[in-house]
Amino acid sequence: MTHEIAVIPGDGIGQEVTPAAVEVLEAIETVDFEFVEGDAGDAVEAETGTALPDATADLAADADATLFGAAGETAADVILPLRQVVGSFANVRPAVAYPALDAVQPHTDLVFIRENTEGVYKGIESEITDGVTTCTRVITEDASEKIAEFGFDYARQNGFDDVTIAHKANVMRQTDGLFLETAEEVGAERDAEYDTALMDALAMHLVMNPEDYGVVICPNLAGDMLSDLAAGLVGGLGLLPSANVGEENALFEPVHGSAPDIAGEGVANPSAMILSAAMLLDHLGYDEEGDRVRDAVETVLEAGPRTPDLGGDGTTEEVTAAILDAL
Amino acid sequence: MTHEIAVIPGDGIGQEVTPAAVEVLEAIETVDFEFVEGDAGDAVEAETGTALPDATADLAADADATLFGAAGETAADVILPLRQVVGSFANVRPAVAYPALDAVQPHTDLVFIRENTEGVYKGIESEITDGVTTCTRVITEDASEKIAEFGFDYARQNGFDDVTIAHKANVMRQTDGLFLETAEEVGAERDAEYDTALMDALAMHLVMNPEDYGVVICPNLAGDMLSDLAAGLVGGLGLLPSANVGEENALFEPVHGSAPDIAGEGVANPSAMILSAAMLLDHLGYDEEGDRVRDAVETVLEAGPRTPDLGGDGTTEEVTAAILDAL
Ligand SMILES: CC(C)[C@H](C(=O)O)[C@@H](O)C(=O)O
Ligand SMILES: CC(C)[C@H](C(=O)O)[C@@H](O)C(=O)O
Repeated sequence: MTHEIAVIPGDGIGQEVTPAAVEVLEAIETVDFEFVEGDAGDAVEAETGTALPDATADLAADADATLFGAAGETAADVILPLRQVVGSFANVRPAVAYPALDAVQPHTDLVFIRENTEGVYKGIESEITDGVTTCTRVITEDASEKIAEFGFDYARQNGFDDVTIAHKANVMRQTDGLFLETAEEVGAERDAEYDTALMDALAMHLVMNPEDYGVVICPNLAGDMLSDLAAGLVGGLGLLPSANVGEENALFEPVHGSAPDIAGEGVANPSAMILSAAMLLDHLGYDEEGDRVRDAVETVLEAGPRTPDLGGDGTTEEVTAAILDAL
Repeated sequence: MTHEIAVIPGDGIGQEVTPAAVEVLEAIETVDFEFVEGDAGDAVEAETGTALPDATADLAADADATLFGAAGETAADVILPLRQVVGSFANVRPAVAYPALDAVQPHTDLVFIRENTEGVYKGIESEITDGVTTCTRVITEDASEKIAEFGFDYARQNGFDDVTIAHKANVMRQTDGLFLETAEEVGAERDAEYDTALMDALAMHLVMNPEDYGVVICPNLAGDMLSDLAAGLVGGLGLLPSANVGEENALFEPVHGSAPDIAGEGVANPSAMILSAAMLLDHLGYDEEGDRVRDAVETVLEAGPRTPDLGGDGTTEEVTAAILDAL
């Protein structure tokens, strides 16, 4: 069985790290892939007037899964519609501290399960009158239930004891109240243990004691911020993969952006993108292969070479070659 | 001249740390205070059905400044109206790492200038239909301009070189777009240097390199989360004071809550509350006296005693006595 993978490198370092991930997937002999490439991002917008051409969106819709690199100024115009195109309701963001690295908090082993369809991301904004604008944040029972079910299942399947439901229901009583109540019901139905946490207090506790937490189920924007916070705890975005999971389709992308400051220099860290490819393998049912890739990345993090973001002077190509060797 | 100060201890450890701050203010011989005490919080609600009695709100409205301790479950019902009563548009939250303490990031010296009137805090929520709720986030040019002016002035007056405007304008294009554009205009008018940062990326950078930042001007909820994150960097909420500043009135409160887990044991750290009293002194124009209080707190952080949150076994009373001695 051949899996069709849409590959959308995008802008900046997306162009450099995406081919690295494709090479790694090609090196997995036990799985057959066919890669189809599409354009998106700033460069395409400059040329065609649209950051996400229909042809690219169609590729993602029709593929078994998508690998997305990064986009620049147009990031929101690319990634938000792409998440919709693949029907993604859950954004899965692991943040793990590797022993080899000098992390701010070396005992971090977290997975953020971020609601991926609503909240302030609905894009409902208005200028009510001159100088007065509104954004309508939407929270539904359906989406809250779906993300909570996904989160509790993920925790069980991946051996996490700690589940935390993040919210700000003391201020957003109806919207986050609904999110919290619905997620708690799911926890109760599953007889699962869980905690709830105000997201501001949670930000503090995650910084001080990340080892007390495991899976964190979050509304959309809270998940955006908390997962980036956790990226800081483990040593930056160069290592963080993510999965946008839908019912039948999924898109995998590094948490980092297009990094215009280092784009074109060939020194971007390919790890986050390669770890995203590992999540793609898991998603297609190749858990062992996913683990192989993760082990290879970890071996290279320990033994080198390393890219400059991790204090080394290795290139993207050298790190990728080392990971391929370690596979 | 006698300054009338409304004192609202509230619930839990608010009852323990607020008297400590009053003692410290009373010990400042160069300033005359008259303290008037009011009730608010869970206990009052249980008794009277309302968490913030009108009489208490009136005290805060009429006083020259207010000291507020903490509230429990009813925190939002107490502090949000109190912020309105004193006409506060700016929430000032310094997060400083003290050399004596083992902070996650010992080079942290940040001040969050949080917009204090709008965003999701307007309380405009609806249940549109069964299982579908909305929260209307409001951003106005007026409030954005006011907080930005306050933030840039604060930075200049307090010797901060770095000003960062936090936002999520790539997703909330109209609301945070207006916030960002307005704040940038204020920066340009003042010929001030500043940076802008997406609040998710900022969360990561603050965790990794807080020394690169100084004053951070934020929309309401972003300020709530980012300042708690920073509390984690410097060793927890036991040390963080805050000021809710209005045109003619102001309210000072620790960033911590009522801490039901340790309430009644006499071991709450009074530092955050006493440092809030120091901000009250600054606000009334007694900067030297404010510095005296801060120096005394710092002396005791170095020499002890310390409360359990900082790894010691001192009591609230012992720490307060030591701070009074050091004054
Ligand atoms: C680019 C932006 C729209 C996006 C988001 O906010 O979801 C990014 O920050 C992310 O987290 O993937
Ligand atoms: C209690 C709550 C309403 C409040 C807020 O969100 O502003 C608190 O978290 C704070 O930061 O003072």
